[in-house]
Amino acid sequence: MKTLFTSDYCEGALPRIMQRLQDTNMVQTIGYGEDEYCAEARRLIRSACGRQDVDVHFLVGGTQTNTTVITSVLKPYQGVLCAESGHINVHETGAIEHGGHKILALPSPDGKITAKQVDDAVKGHFDDENHEHMVMPGMVYISFPTESGTIYSRRELTDISDVCHRHGVPLFVDGARLGYGLAASELVHGRDALSLADFARLTDVFYIGGTKQGALFGEAVVITNDALKANFRYCIKQGGGMLAKGRLLGVQFAALFEDGLYLDASRGAVRQAARIREAFEAKGIGFLVDSPTNQVFPILNEGQKAAMAESFGFETWQKLPDGRTGVRFCTSWATPEANVDALVKAIETL
Amino acid sequence: MKTLFTSDYCEGALPRIMQRLQDTNMVQTIGYGEDEYCAEARRLIRSACGRQDVDVHFLVGGTQTNTTVITSVLKPYQGVLCAESGHINVHETGAIEHGGHKILALPSPDGKITAKQVDDAVKGHFDDENHEHMVMPGMVYISFPTESGTIYSRRELTDISDVCHRHGVPLFVDGARLGYGLAASELVHGRDALSLADFARLTDVFYIGGTKQGALFGEAVVITNDALKANFRYCIKQGGGMLAKGRLLGVQFAALFEDGLYLDASRGAVRQAARIREAFEAKGIGFLVDSPTNQVFPILNEGQKAAMAESFGFETWQKLPDGRTGVRFCTSWATPEANVDALVKAIETL
Amino acid sequence: MKTLFTSDYCEGALPRIMQRLQDTNMVQTIGYGEDEYCAEARRLIRSACGRQDVDVHFLVGGTQTNTTVITSVLKPYQGVLCAESGHINVHETGAIEHGGHKILALPSPDGKITAKQVDDAVKGHFDDENHEHMVMPGMVYISFPTESGTIYSRRELTDISDVCHRHGVPLFVDGARLGYGLAASELVHGRDALSLADFARLTDVFYIGGTKQGALFGEAVVITNDALKANFRYCIKQGGGMLAKGRLLGVQFAALFEDGLYLDASRGAVRQAARIREAFEAKGIGFLVDSPTNQVFPILNEGQKAAMAESFGFETWQKLPDGRTGVRFCTSWATPEANVDALVKAIETL
Amino acid sequence: MKTLFTSDYCEGALPRIMQRLQDTNMVQTIGYGEDEYCAEARRLIRSACGRQDVDVHFLVGGTQTNTTVITSVLKPYQGVLCAESGHINVHETGAIEHGGHKILALPSPDGKITAKQVDDAVKGHFDDENHEHMVMPGMVYISFPTESGTIYSRRELTDISDVCHRHGVPLFVDGARLGYGLAASELVHGRDALSLADFARLTDVFYIGGTKQGALFGEAVVITNDALKANFRYCIKQGGGMLAKGRLLGVQFAALFEDGLYLDASRGAVRQAARIREAFEAKGIGFLVDSPTNQVFPILNEGQKAAMAESFGFETWQKLPDGRTGVRFCTSWATPEANVDALVKAIETL
Repeated sequence: MKTLFTSDYCEGALPRIMQRLQDTNMVQTIGYGEDEYCAEARRLIRSACGRQDVDVHFLVGGTQTNTTVITSVLKPYQGVLCAESGHINVHETGAIEHGGHKILALPSPDGKITAKQVDDAVKGHFDDENHEHMVMPGMVYISFPTESGTIYSRRELTDISDVCHRHGVPLFVDGARLGYGLAASELVHGRDALSLADFARLTDVFYIGGTKQGALFGEAVVITNDALKANFRYCIKQGGGMLAKGRLLGVQFAALFEDGLYLDASRGAVRQAARIREAFEAKGIGFLVDSPTNQVFPILNEGQKAAMAESFGFETWQKLPDGRTGVRFCTSWATPEANVDALVKAIETL
Repeated sequence: MKTLFTSDYCEGALPRIMQRLQDTNMVQTIGYGEDEYCAEARRLIRSACGRQDVDVHFLVGGTQTNTTVITSVLKPYQGVLCAESGHINVHETGAIEHGGHKILALPSPDGKITAKQVDDAVKGHFDDENHEHMVMPGMVYISFPTESGTIYSRRELTDISDVCHRHGVPLFVDGARLGYGLAASELVHGRDALSLADFARLTDVFYIGGTKQGALFGEAVVITNDALKANFRYCIKQGGGMLAKGRLLGVQFAALFEDGLYLDASRGAVRQAARIREAFEAKGIGFLVDSPTNQVFPILNEGQKAAMAESFGFETWQKLPDGRTGVRFCTSWATPEANVDALVKAIETL
Repeated sequence: MKTLFTSDYCEGALPRIMQRLQDTNMVQTIGYGEDEYCAEARRLIRSACGRQDVDVHFLVGGTQTNTTVITSVLKPYQGVLCAESGHINVHETGAIEHGGHKILALPSPDGKITAKQVDDAVKGHFDDENHEHMVMPGMVYISFPTESGTIYSRRELTDISDVCHRHGVPLFVDGARLGYGLAASELVHGRDALSLADFARLTDVFYIGGTKQGALFGEAVVITNDALKANFRYCIKQGGGMLAKGRLLGVQFAALFEDGLYLDASRGAVRQAARIREAFEAKGIGFLVDSPTNQVFPILNEGQKAAMAESFGFETWQKLPDGRTGVRFCTSWATPEANVDALVKAIETL
Repeated sequence: MKTLFTSDYCEGALPRIMQRLQDTNMVQTIGYGEDEYCAEARRLIRSACGRQDVDVHFLVGGTQTNTTVITSVLKPYQGVLCAESGHINVHETGAIEHGGHKILALPSPDGKITAKQVDDAVKGHFDDENHEHMVMPGMVYISFPTESGTIYSRRELTDISDVCHRHGVPLFVDGARLGYGLAASELVHGRDALSLADFARLTDVFYIGGTKQGALFGEAVVITNDALKANFRYCIKQGGGMLAKGRLLGVQFAALFEDGLYLDASRGAVRQAARIREAFEAKGIGFLVDSPTNQVFPILNEGQKAAMAESFGFETWQKLPDGRTGVRFCTSWATPEANVDALVKAIETL
């Protein structure tokens, strides 16, 4: 049986979450997210965001959340600006297009886009004589951390936020792995690290991932822009995201946010990923991209890859022209130190 | 604190399910429903269906399941025949239309439609000179039990199945409460009761509800028609229904189907509902519709309604012109006998 | 060769229109409706509407126009209230649903709906506890004249307009045969007849049919509500309705509106239809519906139908349980008096 | 008044077409393309294609045609492979995505794609472990000539056709300017020139442009693959493309195809464009792309551009980093030799 580093959804949920689900199992509540557990989770998330005026909704999964948010924001003739490697552009089986909207992909070597790219795209659209024949940029989607494990700095995120607001184009952040991003920002940016409150201040809508962050499942959407709040629950229901036993989401997010468990669990994963990264570096092995979060993307030759595959599960990410392969090792809230010890040892013997 | 009879999703999950989720919590698996737990659940469901050749897929909720199945079956110019009161027609915020398809609603006083209605609709379409200007009936949707708690007999279901197959129009059964329907069929139809194997034989695709039947969440789609099997997983992913930790669905459905727990839990709920029905009958109180399943729809006057509302939660279903109100009391796998004792006593004192 | 009374699109266009298209054929213009002919047609239509502040757009056909307008108005979770017999509900192959929206059909024996129906539907929606699970009424669609040839009175239209505005739900009028409706209103309502200016005042958006009213093709959308004006041209382009040689629409609508030709041509058709109606009445033949416009719906027995079919083309509308058939005779701007003479003579000999 | 070379839709229609429309104006026909003129046009087009077994349908405009064809071919989870510069990807306001499908854009410096690109994309999709999370390539869209005025050779088109058929992925050719492409192919490829019969043999569906080729409007879709034929008229109606007076399309296409007018008119335009190209070449002016069809893309400096703009209309295509601008001069069936004489003279004096 191999030890899996394939993703951050290989295990169930944090012990506290399992306990709470067990403790509340036979309590009767009303459905669809209007119960007391959801109310409590909303209070805790608002508090963690430092804003009482945000709307908080709970959905089940990431694709569903992205589709629901984007559908709720865009007019029929609008599209969403997004890095070419953005999750909605590559790994959601065209869910956004199925909902009627074009993804306006921007080139991005490391998964990030820049304020200038957004500015150029929006100005370029309206400057074009034939703009009515083209899809209007109607919102910006970024992920934090990105699909390549990279993170935006405070300056980068602020610049994107500024250009979005100047153009009246809402900014949406996909935070499927938000905790790992925040934990990495602490390490990388120190006193200038981004916090949940920064996201609540700089975006129009973002979501706090649960599925990859220690919940069984669940994503918490935070809507900060008043203009985007109305009737969002209709969109959730239409998109199939309104869980009958909505309490399950409330119980889980309350458990994650009552005392900082969300961020604590992420910190551990980021620390373990750093150990893996350092082990590869020590062997002179390079990376596809320099990721400070819970994902590590070493480039292995055939022999190295085969050696690692004997005991460990990991994902193939990209085949390089020279025959080597960029692969992904992923830690999570669930990764035991011992697993990483074994992995590091294996790397050392490459 | 009132005792709730408002729905069959007021509690969490059956104890065995909670235990299994706990037991398997830290086991590592791959994602998206390709793990061993899902494989085991598929084996058990195929066995319960008496067919090894059916495809089984697990989704999270009912609206999502209906949308995904219907989208996967219909061509762009086709619609779905459905009782006026069908869930997809009234209570899914237009999810089917959002996916591009018209619902061709058929009148139905009790939630059921007839083979003749289907036959007339399909023949009527193709007989019309202007049929290319109209939506082509492309599939039939029925629910078992219906939204009114009624169930089809073997003859009725067979007739609908026959007319569908004669016209080449797939038959889809929404089984959000399938267990309660099967349990009621045993009581009402005796030796002629419908079984899971009958659904696997008479339909093209149907789903086995979990959410309202003792799981935390989850619906198991069974595709029996080979022509509808290809690429269904693309549709699940596009529709936002592919759970990252798909194992959660596998663990739950395996627990439900390993020894008949699914049907056993339903039988209890149906028995409790019968007690409630009899209590109302004994008081000379009539019903909106004659439901043999876990839903009971008595018609109460204002005084009766107020009296019941003191201690019990139930749903308002329909206001009648004479001032009375049709309400719904719903039992479930979770309903303790004591709760029904209290309810029956309250009814007796009306 | 039979004389056709099957529809109002059996011939080409009014002679003046053909002449103008010929005269301007080799003039060079820019495309997509931004040429001088379209500008002139807009001026004339604004003038006929008595409002300089309305937006006027030209599209090619009716289904396209309905889809484009409705898509531009509704939010994803909203639907359109409409008579059961409304064109969008029965004869556009589900174009509205293909665009993502449910049609909320209201019963209607004569093709008309009432202000009370609209009021009940909107209030009923928001009063329902589960309204988030249902499609929100987002606009009202009526046709003038209706598909049954009936017309609204000033009072009826004003009442619908009032209830729409009270609820903030835009009112859209499909005027595919608007001219025939206006001409009939003059006859039926006398000094209280509805005019183009009334439609510009009472609706949020409506369209002036060209295709059935003497143009080769074309429909002129008039948007009176400022909130619905922005970016409509994006919607036209996306919906495939932006004609490259937009001038063709400008030339035609300018010809129709420069001196009242639009209404004059309609008056003739309505007069001829009245002669047909009277001829059937004189024979004691009844009608499916009492239509004062260019459509007549007599109920014929088999013998009568066969006799008429020897020399005339007409449409089968509805088979009655007693074996008789409701049929449609349709006049138009192109109907020569002599054709009606012959038809009347044939009716007299039935 | 400037002489326009901005596009090939600046004028009305070929004189013969205007005459035929006039001659048939008051003839009565049934609607929606089922009249004798459409039947005649179908016969002529089948004959020109050298195949009696193809289906021919008439639609009004290009965006509508592309959307209708693509929607009719793709399954919900499939997308269409297309050059980055393809018309559907840039200039149709996201109509394809509005219909639910992703465009899978391939890099292309000159508007063309290669068989290898198609092969790599399809194989790459199915080779990817996560392919169910990605949009499946379901058809290939190319334009002939391309939006850059370039044309495929017989070898290139055959190779694309072969790879499509090997993978079971239908090939669709947008022929909005097909005539100009065929005429250019005669000049460039000589005895190896592509003909209408080649397109009928090598593609699964293609369309013969009318709007830019001398008709007032109209595009003729030719479906050669039996599997794509069923129920296409439903798709036309749903997409708003079924013209009530369908005869107008039949009359026009019959006029274009009864004796080779279609290709003759295109040859003239291509010869005139060649004169313009040569004039620029003689002045040492380069081109954005080497187009042998009716579009010429010279790169002008500010002075040259201003000088040309004094008397001529043309389109800005692309601003270059060095300050120069790529512009487009477009000839058509309507371009008088005298206009090109004047243009050439002006070029000579640059």
